[in-house]
Amino acid sequence: MAFIKVPEGVPGIRSLVMFRPETGKPLYELAQVLLRRESTLSEAERELIAAYVSKRNDTMFCMMSHAAASRALYGNDKNIVDDVLKDMQHAGISNKMKMLLNIAGKVQILGREVMQEDIDAARNEGATDKEIHDTVLIAAAFSMYNRYVDGLASFTPTDEKEYETMGERMAEKGYVPPAPKK
Amino acid sequence: MAFIKVPEGVPGIRSLVMFRPETGKPLYELAQVLLRRESTLSEAERELIAAYVSKRNDTMFCMMSHAAASRALYGNDKNIVDDVLKDMQHAGISNKMKMLLNIAGKVQILGREVMQEDIDAARNEGATDKEIHDTVLIAAAFSMYNRYVDGLASFTPTDEKEYETMGERMAEKGYVPPAPKK
Repeated sequence: MAFIKVPEGVPGIRSLVMFRPETGKPLYELAQVLLRRESTLSEAERELIAAYVSKRNDTMFCMMSHAAASRALYGNDKNIVDDVLKDMQHAGISNKMKMLLNIAGKVQILGREVMQEDIDAARNEGATDKEIHDTVLIAAAFSMYNRYVDGLASFTPTDEKEYETMGERMAEKGYVPPAPKK
Repeated sequence: MAFIKVPEGVPGIRSLVMFRPETGKPLYELAQVLLRRESTLSEAERELIAAYVSKRNDTMFCMMSHAAASRALYGNDKNIVDDVLKDMQHAGISNKMKMLLNIAGKVQILGREVMQEDIDAARNEGATDKEIHDTVLIAAAFSMYNRYVDGLASFTPTDEKEYETMGERMAEKGYVPPAPKK
C-alpha cells in the first residue's frame, strides 16, 4: 500500500502522476526528451542508463520497467541489458558506453563524485558534450524518479511478464502521462 | 570550469539550461509547480525544504540560492532559515514542518528510508496527503538538481551578496528558464 491515497493497482510512478497531474506533466516531459527525442545515443542505450542507475538505487519498479524497455529496443541484442546489469565492465557494449555508465554510476552516488578524469575518459572514447550532459541528467533524473517511487511506497508489481508488456509499451509509445484520477 | 562547454560566468543550473533548453523547460516547470504554484505549504517553507536537502547533498549553489529565496520570502522571520539549516529539531518552526523535513531528509538518503511511522508522525501533526506528496517530490527533485549541477561542475559563485540578489529574484519572479545560448 502506498503511503498516500493513490488509485489502487496502478503501478509505480503512474499512480503518483494520477494523484498529482500538475507535477506529472513536467516529470513525463523530462523523460520523453531525455529518453526518446533526438540523440546520438540510441533509445536502447538511454533506457539502459536509466535501468543501471535504478538498479544501483535498488528501485525495483524503475529497474524492471526500464530494463524491459531497453530489451524491447535492443531487439535481437537484448541480452546486453542483463549483461550490463550483472557486470557492466565485461558486457558487450562500446568503450564509450562503459565510460558513460561509469559517469552515471558516480552521479548516482553524488554529483561531486564525477572527476575530470571520468569526463576525459569518456571524451577519449568519442563521447560528445551533449552525450556527457544527457548521461549526467538521465542519472540525476533517475535519482529523482527512484526516490519519488520508493519514498511514497508506490505499488511495485512482482510478475516479470507485467514488466515485459510495460517495456514494450514504453518502447513503442514513449512517455505519455496517464489521465488524471476522476 | 564546467565539464562541458556552457556560457562562461553564468552560475549553476542556468548555464546548463542555456546549453540544453529542451531539458531545461520541464526542469524549470517542475520547480515552478512545486515551489510556486498553489499549495497549503508556504513558498518560504517549500524553498526551505529545497535548501535543507541541498545542504545535505553538499551542493553549495542550490543550498545558497534556495536559502536566499526562502529568507526573502520569510521576510521578518528570515532567521528561521539559518536556524533550520543549523539544527532543524530546535528551530522555531511548526511540528508539522519538522516532521516534513524529517521525511525530506530520509528521501535525500534514499526513498526506501521513509517508513510508515515517519508518515504517521507527519499526519499526526496535521500534514495532508498532498503536503506529504509534495515534500517527497521536492526532496527527490533536489536530489536530481543537486546531482545535475555538481555532476557537470557548473559555476558556483562564492560571493554571498550575489545569492541575496538571486534569492530576491527567485522569490519575486519564480522559475523562468533563461534564453537559450545564441
